[in-house]
Amino acid sequence: MSKGERTKERILERAAGVFNRQGYFGASLADIMEATGLEKGGIYNHFASKDDLALQAYDYAVGLVNDLFSEALKGKRNAIDRLRAIAGVYRGMPQGVPVAGGCPVLNTAIEADDAHPILRQKAQATMDEWQAVVRRVVARGIERGEVRADVDPDEVATLLIATLEGAIMMSKLYGDAAHMDRAVDHLEWYFETSLRMDSG
Amino acid sequence: MSKGERTKERILERAAGVFNRQGYFGASLADIMEATGLEKGGIYNHFASKDDLALQAYDYAVGLVNDLFSEALKGKRNAIDRLRAIAGVYRGMPQGVPVAGGCPVLNTAIEADDAHPILRQKAQATMDEWQAVVRRVVARGIERGEVRADVDPDEVATLLIATLEGAIMMSKLYGDAAHMDRAVDHLEWYFETSLRMDSG
Repeated sequence: MSKGERTKERILERAAGVFNRQGYFGASLADIMEATGLEKGGIYNHFASKDDLALQAYDYAVGLVNDLFSEALKGKRNAIDRLRAIAGVYRGMPQGVPVAGGCPVLNTAIEADDAHPILRQKAQATMDEWQAVVRRVVARGIERGEVRADVDPDEVATLLIATLEGAIMMSKLYGDAAHMDRAVDHLEWYFETSLRMDSG
Repeated sequence: MSKGERTKERILERAAGVFNRQGYFGASLADIMEATGLEKGGIYNHFASKDDLALQAYDYAVGLVNDLFSEALKGKRNAIDRLRAIAGVYRGMPQGVPVAGGCPVLNTAIEADDAHPILRQKAQATMDEWQAVVRRVVARGIERGEVRADVDPDEVATLLIATLEGAIMMSKLYGDAAHMDRAVDHLEWYFETSLRMDSG
């Protein structure tokens, strides 16, 4: 990495936390300058606009979450184990793992759905990918006889993501991990009792 | 109602929609002026500051949601029926029923948790109330033999709220009611198969 690339990476890393905690509209250039220790010119050397920085910071934050999913899924073949691994990644999100401020998709979806079309598209694209991952795990599980044939992959994708994202909101609102723990426990129970072959 | 009270009510009604769609930081005074058709002075006649207006608009929006809960619960005595009634209210929220922009608690929690302590307290207070309602329904259901004695009221409160709030986010992000429908269907199934006395 060149010095310029390292600076850009550092801006993205810091800006991702600022936008994710404060929101796109709530984060000012002054906040980004403070978090990066750079002047306005030093930031706009690397980014064309606040929008450009926000979009790249979003991608950076989602990249960190996706890395955790990949790592959690590594070496796990069974569909139920893979679903449990995905849900397990969420346990850390209210505490700012891997990015301060919770889930960047949730934060961006809520802020942008009525107010910022480009950020909304970004959040939709990530949500498309995440749902596709869950659906694929379920569909392959059905093919391999690990998941009951009457399970609807779309339904599992919605439930897994909705339950965990709602639980991040509650755990962050209170600073209390109990909500997330209950959500993950419930999903694990649901996977074992309603999805696993020969259950139910 | 005096003319002044009617004007204040109309400002709150319009401002609630603006703040709920665009967020506290995303909504400008110009947006509120446009939505109400009033000049700055006409608004600040009734509210001390943007914070004052935002906090009262939040209460107004939550009041509309609470009215729907009261109406849905009216005449329902059985705990399972009451839980189904609460979940049913959520079906309209992604479509802006009763307030444009989805659930004011979700929107405020996400925006304020790291960025606006007073709004965060407001969202916590509503969430406290909503959880207390669900816990009370479950606890009374256990007393009356309608709900299994081994059910944990705290767990049901977290799951019901997290699943539905997450589903609002997904349905709003896509403009697709399917996510909310799956969430409500899942909860109804969960109430019937895991909470209802003699189930499971």
